[in-house]
Amino acid sequence: MSHLYGLILAGGRGTRFWPRSRRRRAKQVLRFFGESSLIQETVARLNPVVPPDRLWIITNQHLRAEIVRQLPEVPKRQILAEPAQRNTAPAIGLAAHILESIDPEAVMGVFPADHVIRRPREFVRLLNPAFRAAKEGKIVVLGIQPRWAETGYGYIEFPEDVKAGKWEPVSVLGFREKPDAATAARFLAAGNFYWNAGMFFWKASVLLDALRRFLPSTAALLHSLPAFGASQFHSRMEEVFPRCDNISIDYAVLEKASNVAGVAAGDVGWSDVGSWNAVYELHKRDNHGNAVRGEALIESSSGSYVDSEKLVALLGVKDLIVVDTPDALLIADRARAQQVGELVKRLEKAGREDLL
Amino acid sequence: MSHLYGLILAGGRGTRFWPRSRRRRAKQVLRFFGESSLIQETVARLNPVVPPDRLWIITNQHLRAEIVRQLPEVPKRQILAEPAQRNTAPAIGLAAHILESIDPEAVMGVFPADHVIRRPREFVRLLNPAFRAAKEGKIVVLGIQPRWAETGYGYIEFPEDVKAGKWEPVSVLGFREKPDAATAARFLAAGNFYWNAGMFFWKASVLLDALRRFLPSTAALLHSLPAFGASQFHSRMEEVFPRCDNISIDYAVLEKASNVAGVAAGDVGWSDVGSWNAVYELHKRDNHGNAVRGEALIESSSGSYVDSEKLVALLGVKDLIVVDTPDALLIADRARAQQVGELVKRLEKAGREDLL
Repeated sequence: MSHLYGLILAGGRGTRFWPRSRRRRAKQVLRFFGESSLIQETVARLNPVVPPDRLWIITNQHLRAEIVRQLPEVPKRQILAEPAQRNTAPAIGLAAHILESIDPEAVMGVFPADHVIRRPREFVRLLNPAFRAAKEGKIVVLGIQPRWAETGYGYIEFPEDVKAGKWEPVSVLGFREKPDAATAARFLAAGNFYWNAGMFFWKASVLLDALRRFLPSTAALLHSLPAFGASQFHSRMEEVFPRCDNISIDYAVLEKASNVAGVAAGDVGWSDVGSWNAVYELHKRDNHGNAVRGEALIESSSGSYVDSEKLVALLGVKDLIVVDTPDALLIADRARAQQVGELVKRLEKAGREDLL
Repeated sequence: MSHLYGLILAGGRGTRFWPRSRRRRAKQVLRFFGESSLIQETVARLNPVVPPDRLWIITNQHLRAEIVRQLPEVPKRQILAEPAQRNTAPAIGLAAHILESIDPEAVMGVFPADHVIRRPREFVRLLNPAFRAAKEGKIVVLGIQPRWAETGYGYIEFPEDVKAGKWEPVSVLGFREKPDAATAARFLAAGNFYWNAGMFFWKASVLLDALRRFLPSTAALLHSLPAFGASQFHSRMEEVFPRCDNISIDYAVLEKASNVAGVAAGDVGWSDVGSWNAVYELHKRDNHGNAVRGEALIESSSGSYVDSEKLVALLGVKDLIVVDTPDALLIADRARAQQVGELVKRLEKAGREDLL
């Protein structure tokens, strides 16, 4: 298929992966499994459908150099740093603006940089029908069949007769924000509510139309930018981008647009890797439920995750996350993995720039 | 008082303090509290009664260089390395043999290198009566008033009317090996059973007499050594020492000798610092019972000890021992601190010489 492009959103900070994640080494550039970082895996996964020279990456100024280093196959000029964090709508709008100016027929897929997909071949087979529907002018979202009643994700409501893995896009009935536990359980039981994994497909022109309608101020600001190759492009972006609305594409566009099509994915092994606990769960474990990245000497211990470049001895401990780095060590109850970001806030308050 | 000498026994390995303790950095040369190592504190504490030039130290070949470095005030020739580990009786016999050859009137106090005494001035006041009784020809032991029903120490039975802190040596009724829990409780309730802290006082000649009587083979081997200054002394010691009995002075002499005098110490703040848990208990703790040597960021955690040169973040953990070193990290349940030595055995079996 021609006119296909990929946009990888890589602006997140991932403080929940401290002490390994830092401003200049955020979650998406870290290696948690094997030898590739999450963003390297994302690029490799897309390759059969969107080769690296068709990829655009939006990240932030702290991370751009590392991403350029990790992805020599992606043209450097296509790796952009946002001047300010403005959530997903302005970043996607910016990419759409650039792509439409380069190729008025551009069809773009949007992908987070920091997710894991354990069945990349299954995943890639979903991309063609999604891109095809996008090429026909539809706004397309990917739904992931839920495996438990998660309260941390948004949901997409599909028609009641949806079949996971059927690939053909169908009109979705609506979007639901993160539910409470009872609602999440009801969604799971109903069977036609899918996780919103933040993967979208549309023509750049269709998205720009939607932005003009639903987010006119941001659309006008982006429209005021000179052409991408122009000498003033970057300096103008520095001025314009921070004035855009700070809003997600879900909230700004998807929840308002009619005629959104959904592709209902079967089990592609998707995970947003939301915390160290998710990393633990994605690793192989020994008979006592311990998972180790590095070397550990384990005695009477269970349910623990160790990530360290030096030997870690565990004696009589349970359900711990242990992450060792040269200048900081984290030891957390696994059930508290979601709260690691709060430690980072405390370090910020204490002015510990050396550890951020 | 003239003719007084001190012998510091510094041959232990202290594997329970791994990963900080290693063959070349055993417990006695480590700093757990403040800026001095345990052996430096031992030397400083004795100074008012036995100045450093009257101290002799017996250690092993791995540790001698570090001890020489840490104690420039002790004459280097008085710091000896045992050719083999043979428990306390041969080491003490060797020192007695040397001291008696230098000064036939020598009176020696024997002190472990790796204990803590938090009230050194109270402690020093006990030394004069102990040395005085030793000078009169008695075998003198120091008893520490027990603070709980410890099963890990030997006990000294004093007369029923003993008064802690009275200082004057009294004839003891006997020695008891490490008791079971019920016996330890009975000892505590009785009030006249004191902890045997491994501190002894006697004339060198009296100890040598006792050895000749109770450990004749070892006594003969030591007697066969040339004079301490002689050129063959060290090479002969290499041959002779490993053939000595492998036995403690308690078992070889004290439990058999009659007319042993005891000094009943009051609360001198003695601890043998038997494990990381003891180190934890000797440190100041915050309101949640956490103690830190280094820097820690503590959130929702209690009862834990951190020893690290870099920042350690604790999140939602309880009763942990965390000891970080450049090449190994220990995380143990505090209740298991006694079992750290078993980890070291596993490392030995695995041939990890780099971590021993």
